[in-house]
Amino acid sequence: MSGSGKEHIIKSYDDELARLTGEIVRMGELSITQLEAAIDVVERRDERAAQHVVINDDAIDQLEQEISHDVVRLLALRAPIAGDLRNVFAALRIAADIERIGDYAANVAKRSIPLSMVAPIAPTNGLGHLAELAAAEVRDVLIAYRDRDAERAYQVWKDDADLDEAYTGYFRQLLTYMMEDPRNITPCTHLLFMAKNIERIGDHATNIAENVWFQVNGEPLTAQRSKRDYTSSPEMPTLGDKSE
Amino acid sequence: MSGSGKEHIIKSYDDELARLTGEIVRMGELSITQLEAAIDVVERRDERAAQHVVINDDAIDQLEQEISHDVVRLLALRAPIAGDLRNVFAALRIAADIERIGDYAANVAKRSIPLSMVAPIAPTNGLGHLAELAAAEVRDVLIAYRDRDAERAYQVWKDDADLDEAYTGYFRQLLTYMMEDPRNITPCTHLLFMAKNIERIGDHATNIAENVWFQVNGEPLTAQRSKRDYTSSPEMPTLGDKSE
Repeated sequence: MSGSGKEHIIKSYDDELARLTGEIVRMGELSITQLEAAIDVVERRDERAAQHVVINDDAIDQLEQEISHDVVRLLALRAPIAGDLRNVFAALRIAADIERIGDYAANVAKRSIPLSMVAPIAPTNGLGHLAELAAAEVRDVLIAYRDRDAERAYQVWKDDADLDEAYTGYFRQLLTYMMEDPRNITPCTHLLFMAKNIERIGDHATNIAENVWFQVNGEPLTAQRSKRDYTSSPEMPTLGDKSE
Repeated sequence: MSGSGKEHIIKSYDDELARLTGEIVRMGELSITQLEAAIDVVERRDERAAQHVVINDDAIDQLEQEISHDVVRLLALRAPIAGDLRNVFAALRIAADIERIGDYAANVAKRSIPLSMVAPIAPTNGLGHLAELAAAEVRDVLIAYRDRDAERAYQVWKDDADLDEAYTGYFRQLLTYMMEDPRNITPCTHLLFMAKNIERIGDHATNIAENVWFQVNGEPLTAQRSKRDYTSSPEMPTLGDKSE
């Protein structure tokens, strides 16, 4: 009897963890939808739709709150240790990263509103390309998390260098527009912050990848990513900053 | 005997929480020192000192790791509930906010390096003013956290509007420099990202204030901060964004 009781508790813990993973993956998918919607409103210059994206971000924040509650309940009821505790903490950190991905997507939508009023000619297609790369990273890292696939997570971690490179290219392009005509400065300032937001989404995807790696292997992902070093160039703003 | 045993456990939990609070306050003080050092290197255009600030950020990251470990140990050993659990989670969130404040300070220092190579005339004194406001917010909210002083936390939360306003003013000033002379565009782009970093430090101070409020009162700080609404102006980039 006591054996089956223990089994029941273990099964139930696994069930709760599986439910938590499912919630986080859904939250992540919502953040991708938000990013895609944000880029769509930038291209269509649709102010009403932009406000819709901003409001929808509340749903992601709400999900993070629920996940935090679930984690607290799980900790209080099960007092998990070692590997289980690692899983629970990874869930908490990954949910926080997704919440911020949602914030960045909402910021992109928000900035499209003033942009639609001032910028008839600013190039926005580069932004769409950055968003595609970022969305692919988030999508892949969610699969890696769902499947506890450390190799797939590592691939996302490496792929982020492509997004960094695309960001740098777009940034340089915007600078030339600003230099050509002072009337481009204000719209391009919006675009460079929007581009930075998307570049940061990639950083959060790599954070999630690091968490998945640690969860699976029990040790940090120490390999050094081959960071392209643009930072020493006086012509370019410092890239690859943390938390900007 | 069993009564005194229980007392011993309770005292020990309080001791551990006090130690945790102390660690977090020290971590916060380190982040203020980093911000002040970052502004100092911007003003002196000292590349070597800037790299020093960037490297020092590791110490803050290290402290956050240690605090996370302490929290895990506390959860595993004590399995705290209700109010105690709230304190422990607040500690975790506040440490994460401070870690990001440290990141922003390091980013300011990092961007001063390319800035020192291109910009003989760009106005940096506005940046120092922003940093003073931000440092004051962080300093105050740490005291509020240490003393569990909800009113003081609320004051910080309100004060952040002043930083937002100063940020807007500096941003406008930078735009005029960029419009006057295309050679100002690259240095001013650095400065506007640096200013944004400092504005974000204020947002994290308000996050900490919200956590202190919740910790003390057990309910969220729901009052709406009197946000100045610049966002609808087509002349200005969207302000007050989350996580930018």
